[in-house]
Amino acid sequence: MSDPNKGRILLSVTGFNPQRWHELLSARRPVTLEPEGEADPSIEYAVVWKQKPNVLARLPNLKAVFSIGAGVDHLFADPGLPDVPIVRVVADHLTQYMTEYVCWRVLDHHRQGRLYRDQKKRKVWHEPPQAPAGTVSVGIMGFGNLGRAAAAALLALGYSVKGWSRTGTTMDGVETFGGTEGLDAFLAATDILVVLLPLTPATTGIIDFDLLAKLRRDNAIGGAVLINAGRGRLQKDADIVRALDEGVLREASLDVFETEPLPLDSPVWTHEKVFVTPHAAATSDPAHLTGPMLDQMDACDRGEALHSLVDREAGY
Amino acid sequence: MSDPNKGRILLSVTGFNPQRWHELLSARRPVTLEPEGEADPSIEYAVVWKQKPNVLARLPNLKAVFSIGAGVDHLFADPGLPDVPIVRVVADHLTQYMTEYVCWRVLDHHRQGRLYRDQKKRKVWHEPPQAPAGTVSVGIMGFGNLGRAAAAALLALGYSVKGWSRTGTTMDGVETFGGTEGLDAFLAATDILVVLLPLTPATTGIIDFDLLAKLRRDNAIGGAVLINAGRGRLQKDADIVRALDEGVLREASLDVFETEPLPLDSPVWTHEKVFVTPHAAATSDPAHLTGPMLDQMDACDRGEALHSLVDREAGY
Ligand SMILES: NC(=O)c1ccc[n+]([C@@H]2O[C@H](COP(=O)([O-])OP(=O)(O)OC[C@H]3O[C@@H](n4cnc5c(N)ncnc54)[C@H](OP(=O)(O)O)[C@@H]3O)[C@@H](O)[C@H]2O)c1
Ligand SMILES: NC(=O)c1ccc[n+]([C@@H]2O[C@H](COP(=O)([O-])OP(=O)(O)OC[C@H]3O[C@@H](n4cnc5c(N)ncnc54)[C@H](OP(=O)(O)O)[C@@H]3O)[C@@H](O)[C@H]2O)c1
Repeated sequence: MSDPNKGRILLSVTGFNPQRWHELLSARRPVTLEPEGEADPSIEYAVVWKQKPNVLARLPNLKAVFSIGAGVDHLFADPGLPDVPIVRVVADHLTQYMTEYVCWRVLDHHRQGRLYRDQKKRKVWHEPPQAPAGTVSVGIMGFGNLGRAAAAALLALGYSVKGWSRTGTTMDGVETFGGTEGLDAFLAATDILVVLLPLTPATTGIIDFDLLAKLRRDNAIGGAVLINAGRGRLQKDADIVRALDEGVLREASLDVFETEPLPLDSPVWTHEKVFVTPHAAATSDPAHLTGPMLDQMDACDRGEALHSLVDREAGY
Repeated sequence: MSDPNKGRILLSVTGFNPQRWHELLSARRPVTLEPEGEADPSIEYAVVWKQKPNVLARLPNLKAVFSIGAGVDHLFADPGLPDVPIVRVVADHLTQYMTEYVCWRVLDHHRQGRLYRDQKKRKVWHEPPQAPAGTVSVGIMGFGNLGRAAAAALLALGYSVKGWSRTGTTMDGVETFGGTEGLDAFLAATDILVVLLPLTPATTGIIDFDLLAKLRRDNAIGGAVLINAGRGRLQKDADIVRALDEGVLREASLDVFETEPLPLDSPVWTHEKVFVTPHAAATSDPAHLTGPMLDQMDACDRGEALHSLVDREAGY
């Protein structure tokens, strides 16, 4: 039951219907979709996905902003973002979905799903050469919560795993690389590139033709593969198409795109070497996420520290 | 180098070219493709895949038969199969390939690969409801070397796993069922059925319409799924097609078929709900298998016990 003595929540969402979020958050605190007047002192927390610009600037008593999603790039676009702690999503069910997605796409590329689907259309009974997972190197770009969980699952499946991060974060059984100085060596040792980076000024557009050309193409699976489940603006869609057409990439699985929904005239829709999902690798399920958010708000009211905080300077 | 003092090997293969096997076995023992005369006392071991009928009956000094493959149904068809120990393949690389295949197919059905491929053709940007692996029950029919390895990998991916075997073989973290009396309960608790049974008189044709109708259809993934990587004659191809058409099955992945190669006029080729691979789930790679076979022959010559022996009465 919503407690009227608790500070109110502003729920500011664009791009999808926030009704479920509204219902679930309202169960414990008053929730509003718009602040009242020029400055609304009754609002203490904001839960946002691509919030309306400058709306957060009208909340003098705002204690923290909660991002709907693990990534927080969507909220930095706002010029009126106030200087309060930003909490992002770190949740088991989100990690579980992403790990499934990564293993699914890696296996489908490695085990040649596209070839078999094509052979079936032509009624061809033919077994191509096979390479076991141990001969295939999966390089994970962005080795945070999601990247490390995917790495653990890929190791269990027998893959050789590499990781790349800003600070060179390490993990048992994984060869890790750090920073721009480690990037080329990481790419040269990677057959299947899995992108799980946050979108920041430093990572915007990083997946371009030049980067893809540095992947290991002369490998056990007959070419390099790209899987991006991070953010669309990490990549240049047109460079991926070019890399596929020029044989620099064998195949790609893309969950994210420079513009979403993917425009109808994008060549990606009709490119036979690309597998497309609609930013659905890992769903933010309000039934799982609102409880921990409300718990954090209560803890914050009691003066306890927030966790899963964003480093504003790093941008993630 | 082939040792002329060692007993000879008969390599009897139909259906594929045994040249690589011949080369690799010849490195350590004399190998022949045909016995000499009515009875050939020089031959002490046979390495076979669907051997020519009655050829083994002409080997008075035969000590053991080695099956090329984990399944041994192919050699029991021979009326002249002598009463010597039969060794089958139990090999890490084969298990690895099969585990990859099972996880790949389970993930593609669970994560709706077919739906997304279809949406891409129609340029549809739509996210269907998602269920995490923990809400999906994968039932493994045939819980031996391959079934248990697949179970371990599926558990690591977060699935709920069930196992069914003749004797009720158990495993930590898996609910197991045994024998015909346990079958219905196993099927009723299974959303995705993975068949890794050997082909024996007791299992021939077991995957029929009635069995498929007992799977749990009212589940988190919108229907029941069949994955068969055991042997084709475990199933009735026509019953699977009927089950798909009548909504008893949502989708199927078949690596094996009643007749192989799958005949051009089979309705399976054109059925949009079936994913087909050409008996390629796990390849028997001679580079990995001949060494252990030759080692076992040497051990047998020294009077040591053979392992990975087939139980003739059980038929596997
Ligand atoms: N498609 C989807 O459905 C979906 C769902 C959820 C999340 N996502 C995306 O996945 C991203 C990752 O989530 P997460 O929870 O794993 O985030 P995280 O824990 O913050 O991890 C981010 C990783 O990226 C690395 N990184 C950041 N900036 C870098 C740079 N300039 N150069 C090299 N490495 C850099 C970090 O390095 P350090 O280890 O050195 O800090 C860290 O390893 C999110 O930001 C979001 O964009 C997508
Ligand atoms: N598609 C491919 O590429 C490929 C490759 C390799 C193998 N295979 C097939 O996979 C099969 C399994 O291989 P594996 O190495 O795992 O064999 P395995 O270790 O002998 O295991 C066989 C399993 O099936 C169970 N079983 C046998 N008869 C049964 C019956 N009548 N009712 C219930 N359960 C029964 C056994 O029960 P118990 O545990 O009680 O003994 C055991 O759990 C092989 O026989 C072969 O046909 C296919």
